[in-house]
Amino acid sequence: MTDMTTKSTRPGGRSAAVLAAVKAAVEELIAERGRGAITIPMVAERAGVNPTSVYRRWGDLQTMINDIATYRLDPNRPLPNTSDLRRDVELWAEEFVAHYSKPVNAALLRAGAGAAGDVESDCLRNRRVEASLLIERAPESFGLDPEELIDYVIAPIIYRIIFSPWTVDKTTAPRLVSRLFARVPIA
Amino acid sequence: MTDMTTKSTRPGGRSAAVLAAVKAAVEELIAERGRGAITIPMVAERAGVNPTSVYRRWGDLQTMINDIATYRLDPNRPLPNTSDLRRDVELWAEEFVAHYSKPVNAALLRAGAGAAGDVESDCLRNRRVEASLLIERAPESFGLDPEELIDYVIAPIIYRIIFSPWTVDKTTAPRLVSRLFARVPIA
Repeated sequence: MTDMTTKSTRPGGRSAAVLAAVKAAVEELIAERGRGAITIPMVAERAGVNPTSVYRRWGDLQTMINDIATYRLDPNRPLPNTSDLRRDVELWAEEFVAHYSKPVNAALLRAGAGAAGDVESDCLRNRRVEASLLIERAPESFGLDPEELIDYVIAPIIYRIIFSPWTVDKTTAPRLVSRLFARVPIA
Repeated sequence: MTDMTTKSTRPGGRSAAVLAAVKAAVEELIAERGRGAITIPMVAERAGVNPTSVYRRWGDLQTMINDIATYRLDPNRPLPNTSDLRRDVELWAEEFVAHYSKPVNAALLRAGAGAAGDVESDCLRNRRVEASLLIERAPESFGLDPEELIDYVIAPIIYRIIFSPWTVDKTTAPRLVSRLFARVPIA
């Protein structure tokens, strides 16, 4: 086992390399064995890093998995911007469904849910920021509140992905978005 | 440490006594120390049962917590029955919010979410059965589908309890139910 923390010479690169290697190792191991069978020594071995690097950075397995789970949907990715709020929300919801339809991402979401509660989870904070952005920049916002996008669209997707992923398919996002806009008085 | 499995003489009582003691121990320990700090030996000691009884019944910690988490909302409790579907759904949702507003129940829900995914979780199955019952026996069902009760009412409550419990309060259930019925054409 080599320790990747000794390989990089870029300032800040050591830490980024450890993160990338550990993230890849966790995803592989969850896909192969499921969340319940993973340990920190196992992750460290697969990532080729020293277990102490992992313990130093994250403290414990649950914190590590939660941290990695919230990395998965890049908060800096471009959001849909079609000048049509309904279409933007639909594309946004479809991206969500596609993302969490991959079993490894669903497993990471469940792990994140298991570790959530004490502080605001990125899963909710980032989605709320995105919902606000979509509404703010739309030419017509129909008086929608970001919290409505969370309750009508995001919550049902996340709830179903966690507890019954087989009830989520390509029809899910359009159905939820059409319910949201059914309540909107057409201008 | 005494083994409670030796105390009961009722047929079936041994197993029920172990379950009750373990359930109480898990709830106490989660309330005291949080989900992350619990181990099976710790639970067994608090419950006054032999760790092997716990391993024999549940196999591992995650399975045990998931099993206990789904016990918490009694599937045999009476459901609201006011002959007014909107009022019934509101009472049902309020019971949910009150239940999961207790930190120990929220912690058990998160633990259940962490262990969900492979088979249908009781958390979703029981709620869907209840939603169907409420609609079936209402004098006027407004053409509502049980899945709509899940998406409009249950999913936002569960999502928020898991990821941001401090956004849930006494206004949550009435707000979600009023959105559901806002979409219903009044007969």
